[in-house]
Amino acid sequence: MRRLFLRALERSASSGAFAFVFADGERFEQGAAPWEFVAHFKTEAALADCVRRGSLGFGEAYMQGNIEVEGDLQHLVRVGQAMAHSGFRPGFLEIARFVLGSLLRRNTLSGSRRNIATHYDLGNDFYARFLDPQMQYTCAYFEVPEDSLEQAQLNKMDLVCRKLGLKPGQEIVEAGCGWGGLALHAATHYGVRVTSYNISKEQIAWARERALALGVGPEQVEYRLEDYRSIPKLGKRFDHFVSVGMLEHVGRENYRRFFDLIHRVTRPEGRALVHSIGRSYPSRIDAWLERYIFPGAYIPSLGEITASLESPGRLWQVSDVENLRLHYAVTLDHWAARLEAHVAEIVEQHGEEFVRMFRLYLRSAAAGFRWGGLQLYQLVLEMQPGDGPPCTRHAMLHHEAAGKPLLAPVRKAPAPYER
Amino acid sequence: MRRLFLRALERSASSGAFAFVFADGERFEQGAAPWEFVAHFKTEAALADCVRRGSLGFGEAYMQGNIEVEGDLQHLVRVGQAMAHSGFRPGFLEIARFVLGSLLRRNTLSGSRRNIATHYDLGNDFYARFLDPQMQYTCAYFEVPEDSLEQAQLNKMDLVCRKLGLKPGQEIVEAGCGWGGLALHAATHYGVRVTSYNISKEQIAWARERALALGVGPEQVEYRLEDYRSIPKLGKRFDHFVSVGMLEHVGRENYRRFFDLIHRVTRPEGRALVHSIGRSYPSRIDAWLERYIFPGAYIPSLGEITASLESPGRLWQVSDVENLRLHYAVTLDHWAARLEAHVAEIVEQHGEEFVRMFRLYLRSAAAGFRWGGLQLYQLVLEMQPGDGPPCTRHAMLHHEAAGKPLLAPVRKAPAPYER
Repeated sequence: MRRLFLRALERSASSGAFAFVFADGERFEQGAAPWEFVAHFKTEAALADCVRRGSLGFGEAYMQGNIEVEGDLQHLVRVGQAMAHSGFRPGFLEIARFVLGSLLRRNTLSGSRRNIATHYDLGNDFYARFLDPQMQYTCAYFEVPEDSLEQAQLNKMDLVCRKLGLKPGQEIVEAGCGWGGLALHAATHYGVRVTSYNISKEQIAWARERALALGVGPEQVEYRLEDYRSIPKLGKRFDHFVSVGMLEHVGRENYRRFFDLIHRVTRPEGRALVHSIGRSYPSRIDAWLERYIFPGAYIPSLGEITASLESPGRLWQVSDVENLRLHYAVTLDHWAARLEAHVAEIVEQHGEEFVRMFRLYLRSAAAGFRWGGLQLYQLVLEMQPGDGPPCTRHAMLHHEAAGKPLLAPVRKAPAPYER
Repeated sequence: MRRLFLRALERSASSGAFAFVFADGERFEQGAAPWEFVAHFKTEAALADCVRRGSLGFGEAYMQGNIEVEGDLQHLVRVGQAMAHSGFRPGFLEIARFVLGSLLRRNTLSGSRRNIATHYDLGNDFYARFLDPQMQYTCAYFEVPEDSLEQAQLNKMDLVCRKLGLKPGQEIVEAGCGWGGLALHAATHYGVRVTSYNISKEQIAWARERALALGVGPEQVEYRLEDYRSIPKLGKRFDHFVSVGMLEHVGRENYRRFFDLIHRVTRPEGRALVHSIGRSYPSRIDAWLERYIFPGAYIPSLGEITASLESPGRLWQVSDVENLRLHYAVTLDHWAARLEAHVAEIVEQHGEEFVRMFRLYLRSAAAGFRWGGLQLYQLVLEMQPGDGPPCTRHAMLHHEAAGKPLLAPVRKAPAPYER
């Protein structure tokens, strides 16, 4: 096993300084201290798990404490990704088991409810420990690297609102609203009315409570505990459609239906913004991540997204795509640091294995965005071509304050070309 | 014929005020004066041509003067597009003839040379009559609608250079350089060395002459009269790859090869910028356009572009996509206005039919970008994922003047959020 492992490590030609310590104390080192990480296989079985079952084996061994890591876990994941990339993969049986498992977790209406509850109903208190006060659980936008997480999440919400070109009085529909922060931000800062869909009970309850506390009534923001596939039942069209961090849960087999729905429920003059994790090329989601964190999830390539929205005779267009992958890496750094700052309470409430699982998820996602081909795409769609003056990106991000006081000041970005 | 035509017109539900006048003087009007256009069918055959052979029949009848149009031709094209869209299409025989024709014009190495010569070797004097002084024959970038064509073409070149993040001393390779303006701009304003490929003899001759006149030697810009497929023969890698307005001529069957080539000839730390006309959904190019203007051309959808660059195990990424379709519509307005300003000389040199052909091409393209689902995509690719501070669009467009004097001042864009 050790020989197999070390040979795969060599083949991967991973850079960096790191060390592996095996159960009998034997040590493999690459480079010299300071180490990016030192990984200890506490048992021979843990090593065998990694070799035989790839990321699923590694993830389970790590969760159970049979692998201990000093230093930043993301560097270990980087090395693991490089090994997988150079052909170190779980065998056929493990893949078959994974495919069968994910079929069981398909995103039918009830399947989606189960899949979403698994992750998003872990308890609002838990999420509040590492998220920002608006409970934004998607990629933030760091205008400058020094932005706090709070500021960067406000930036992200403004970025989304501005790309949509929100105007006071417009009606917006949101598919997958998390804890409702974006809807609240859009309603209170941009004067729009938002109807938000989510099938996570815990999130919707929290969102409603917060809106109530802030005096925002359902005539401004309406949170609906319903699947996004119910939006057409309202029998109306909205000015704009927005979905931030939900496409990952839609499932590849539903993409055409998802985009057809957007086209159907948005007015011809409107826009849609879809914000989703993506990847460099079509591929299955990591087996450990699908099993333990996001059951039923699928991460699309940009080609899969754009090809699914194209339809003969349909004259709508992608007018903008921005890739925020490094913003997500930094967002995940912030979340992980906050998790560690509260690790004692979380262990007490959820147990050691849960914390190890969550830590591995946050650090492996950061590694994926930095080095592993994970992307974060924000697509803007215009429902139909239309004439008008050519749009620039400066114009796209322009917003007149609409005469309404803002809850928080919208930050002025520095002038372009000047940093 | 007339009944068929009018029924299709009704089905298309086209908006606007316009009139058709038939050969016997009968007149069909929609709306009221002032008319967007009044189209005269001078012969019954011209009408039959449109009904039986779609855009190819219309285009030929217009070129021959059997259809006359008062007002802006683009509105007539808009109505024609709407008719085609609602099912008014040439019959099977016409489609088969078109498909056979385009097979004959495939982009093999010699086929590409023939196809490119057909359009780009029409004579530099002719193009100089309606293009800007830099002879930019691709979409300009209007920072403000009032920008002159000259300014907007400079803006476009700066936009491309800045998206690539050019740094002094870097080596750039360009596939399809037109009259060489971008290479010259990048070399003289950004201090890079450019190797540019083009198979149009006329364009390369003009480019070399201009570089010579400006004192830019082949150590700064080298123009090669060669197919882009020869780039790998140099046996080296470049810092960045750029291709503005050539993908349209690559042919769908060569996309994978095109993107493989980019990946092979660009350094891992580098970027590529691909600027191409696109369309809302995969579809053949207009038959008239392929026959008379761009033999062998194919206009891809964004899905076709992005799917062709994705390849299992290849960790590169699309980091940005901007759609400049309305910028192209305005660019085409400028070109058409300049063409009309010199119409007498051009008729004298090239004949009436040629001018009518070129006018129809410029106005139908403008209509396509405004209403017909034509897009202009600028894609930025990063060759491999890498860590670093998250990039913002402000940062992407940032450029320190590199200590070199600029030939023309780089315009400061207005502050974001302020217009």
